[in-house]
Amino acid sequence: MRKLLLSLIIAIIFGGIATAQSTIQLPEPQKTGGMPLMESLAKRSTARAFSTKEISNKQLSNILWASFGINRADGKRTAPSTMNFQGTDIYVLLKSGAYIFDAKNNKLTQVLSEDIRVLGGTQAFVKDAPVQLILVSDLSKLGKGSNEEKMNISNIDAGYISQNIYLCCVSEGLVTGARGSVDHKALAAKLKLRQDQSIVIAHSVGYAK
Amino acid sequence: MRKLLLSLIIAIIFGGIATAQSTIQLPEPQKTGGMPLMESLAKRSTARAFSTKEISNKQLSNILWASFGINRADGKRTAPSTMNFQGTDIYVLLKSGAYIFDAKNNKLTQVLSEDIRVLGGTQAFVKDAPVQLILVSDLSKLGKGSNEEKMNISNIDAGYISQNIYLCCVSEGLVTGARGSVDHKALAAKLKLRQDQSIVIAHSVGYAK
Repeated sequence: MRKLLLSLIIAIIFGGIATAQSTIQLPEPQKTGGMPLMESLAKRSTARAFSTKEISNKQLSNILWASFGINRADGKRTAPSTMNFQGTDIYVLLKSGAYIFDAKNNKLTQVLSEDIRVLGGTQAFVKDAPVQLILVSDLSKLGKGSNEEKMNISNIDAGYISQNIYLCCVSEGLVTGARGSVDHKALAAKLKLRQDQSIVIAHSVGYAK
Repeated sequence: MRKLLLSLIIAIIFGGIATAQSTIQLPEPQKTGGMPLMESLAKRSTARAFSTKEISNKQLSNILWASFGINRADGKRTAPSTMNFQGTDIYVLLKSGAYIFDAKNNKLTQVLSEDIRVLGGTQAFVKDAPVQLILVSDLSKLGKGSNEEKMNISNIDAGYISQNIYLCCVSEGLVTGARGSVDHKALAAKLKLRQDQSIVIAHSVGYAK
């Protein structure tokens, strides 16, 4: 009985530690201020070179909220989604592992404790950027249409989110570049994606080199 | 000879007037200022009711530049496009007719002198909005891939542009709503689209009702 209790206590402690380590609670994102819109549009461009300098958790929180955060009490988002399906998940690749963005709780839930940032794209510069954001469409959330219709929705919805990432990076003094050229099979395997999840766009995010 | 000369003069005069009427030179868009980015993201939403009040040409110019205007000396844009194909054209439906946005010259070139705004969508509220923006992909500009690859590009690229329209409308004190539910066949016929042009997204733009 004592042994069982001890095991239980150990399990709770270690379970607790494991949970604490595998989740990153992000600081509250900034929902006011930032660069004036027209200036951020004037400065928007695609970067192809990145410094290895880390960005702050506050910057990451701002970018994730800007990209597809909740901006209304009814759970609607900063980017529209077809039929309000909200079918896009944002995976975040950091040095400490791969995470999925939980917009409701403003946290990153770990899916892998391995640095797979290099899988964020096929170009040489990808390895330098401290953050890779992977936009993954969950086709199971996209209604009853054909696969072609679901791919149309996936692509349009990812475009919306991707533009928000661009603009917020400008506002944060960071640079970013979006791409479709990803080793989909290798990345999907590491992220443990299901067959009905599809990688649409990958972004590198960081400081300019 | 005198008759021929007279006809020629008349033709030139009337030709000139016709050209002047069929082109709208937009005022210079605002490329600085606007609402702070994070605030415009916090306020982004999709409108489903519009006032019939007209928007100004300055507002229209700002929205069109924001959406897919040229923001660099090399001709690159406020929204990225896959492989820099720049394959999306923006058609503008106004009371005075249908136009295509010429980003380089900041003008609207008329394609039809008829009010076809009601074709901007199938919902009842569409008829009220003073402006409909139709994002049309020109598949002939999208490289040598399969039709499926071209549709993927069309959809992603339209998503980018559509988000810029949303954010600029917030900044301008206007509202907008994007949709795919358009009578594609009827609208394509009126806009004289070729077989390899595809309507991707339609936006209503105006004041809130």
